[in-house]
Amino acid sequence: MDDLSEFLSLVKQNVDACLDRLVPGAGIEPTRLHEAIRWSLFAGGKRIRPALVFASGRVFGSPDAKLSATAAAIEMIHTYSLIHDDLPAMDDDDLRRGKPTCHKQFDEATAVLAGDVLQTLAFKAIAEDEVLPADIRVKLICLIASAAGTPDGMVAGQQLDLEAEGGNLTIDQIERIHRSKTGALITASAMAGALIGEASNDELIAIEKYAQSLGLLFQVTDDLLDVTAVTESLGKTAGKDVTSQKATYPKLLGVEGTVNLANELSDKACQALSTISGDTSTLTKLAEMVLNRKR
Amino acid sequence: MDDLSEFLSLVKQNVDACLDRLVPGAGIEPTRLHEAIRWSLFAGGKRIRPALVFASGRVFGSPDAKLSATAAAIEMIHTYSLIHDDLPAMDDDDLRRGKPTCHKQFDEATAVLAGDVLQTLAFKAIAEDEVLPADIRVKLICLIASAAGTPDGMVAGQQLDLEAEGGNLTIDQIERIHRSKTGALITASAMAGALIGEASNDELIAIEKYAQSLGLLFQVTDDLLDVTAVTESLGKTAGKDVTSQKATYPKLLGVEGTVNLANELSDKACQALSTISGDTSTLTKLAEMVLNRKR
Repeated sequence: MDDLSEFLSLVKQNVDACLDRLVPGAGIEPTRLHEAIRWSLFAGGKRIRPALVFASGRVFGSPDAKLSATAAAIEMIHTYSLIHDDLPAMDDDDLRRGKPTCHKQFDEATAVLAGDVLQTLAFKAIAEDEVLPADIRVKLICLIASAAGTPDGMVAGQQLDLEAEGGNLTIDQIERIHRSKTGALITASAMAGALIGEASNDELIAIEKYAQSLGLLFQVTDDLLDVTAVTESLGKTAGKDVTSQKATYPKLLGVEGTVNLANELSDKACQALSTISGDTSTLTKLAEMVLNRKR
Repeated sequence: MDDLSEFLSLVKQNVDACLDRLVPGAGIEPTRLHEAIRWSLFAGGKRIRPALVFASGRVFGSPDAKLSATAAAIEMIHTYSLIHDDLPAMDDDDLRRGKPTCHKQFDEATAVLAGDVLQTLAFKAIAEDEVLPADIRVKLICLIASAAGTPDGMVAGQQLDLEAEGGNLTIDQIERIHRSKTGALITASAMAGALIGEASNDELIAIEKYAQSLGLLFQVTDDLLDVTAVTESLGKTAGKDVTSQKATYPKLLGVEGTVNLANELSDKACQALSTISGDTSTLTKLAEMVLNRKR
């Protein structure tokens, strides 16, 4: 196992144990609600956002114990957004990671409530995390709430994405959607680690730049994977996918142009780290992993 | 205008101004999302929970400026819960306070997101409220998140309520649902004011007892009003309403028994205040108002 795999496996173990502590047991009333939360929370997520909290926090010397609850909280917010995005009124997805989505496995009302309360539990987890000084906790909550909220956060991005469906978007409009819908929480994850590690202002700005490029890279490679997946599994050509309704990078830039953009974003992310004196190698490896990801 | 009406009107003015500052303007992108939030937030709510924050905070000498953001945050959480409760998958209501519900006026996806982001904005509002020390802010967030969450909070109560529909409940089961679904946030409102006013532990316990009785009283009088409304508008007798699907206090205790329970709860609420040396007259008047409410 290489260093990065070992790191990711440790993060997953740490965060899963923390999530298990933070969410009421499946045997506690209302059991259906707690089963639904756990169904989605332990559905095989890659824990990318927690990995960013840990990787960034370690750069500035934070012990892992100070990073766990915040990493778990961000994963809870990410999971709530997936549950709600999958609802019939939103993207209407029956499957996620090969398993029935929350509203399919349980029911729509339970899925709405499971998502709602995951958000509640997330902010509670940070507020009650006594290993952190209170002033750091309120800063983390502000940071994460801005990233999860509106007008520049995740919910705003999902609203813009829903409104954009079927329309022709420019590259700037796509970027605006992705920066808020997925980029903001990814950026907040890396910044949360830096905040906990008490990074300087200049260091925080460097981490923000790194993570903004990484967040966009994540979406660009996601679009590329869609094209690949369609080509391999359905025998459709990339060219056909480009004509589908959803605005994607390959549709606007072509596959080659999108690959070039991905490389540029990865370079930009890594360059942003150059001003930081601590060991940023794990952050660099995470960017390479996203650039070369196969799922 | 009597003292209580004047107080309620001042609270409403104060909280509405604060909400207007905390929520992005309807002209800011994504405009549909912000319009939907404002549609529900300014739909004529009675601002009972903010009134409890202010009334309780004033008992312990807190200036109003320290209470506004927390009062507004609690109202945002209450409003998010109404938007989601009205969804087709939940209570499926087309009207609230005589106006189309959020998903009727806009659409279901926007209503889900408006509710989601109101919760986010609520916790952000407290976390960034610099007139309060950071340690009070994290205590408030813990208090309110517990009350809004699970296993003893609002979302847990809504889940239990949905599961109970059509079934025969005992009085203890009804009380369990109401204590969490509506009681917990009402209790947290009064306790938040006391926390901001830096009440002693004994005073906090007294306020908690007061508000727990008040929260239950609120539901009991709600059930009574349902009976009255049905009798007056549909010509059904209270006896017929008692046979309907939903478990209510009049169904289990009869109308007279329910009126007696309401009086008992109001007495209990007021008695709990007797150990507090500050001026609790507004809290007493609020209990009387709930006991005698006509809507």
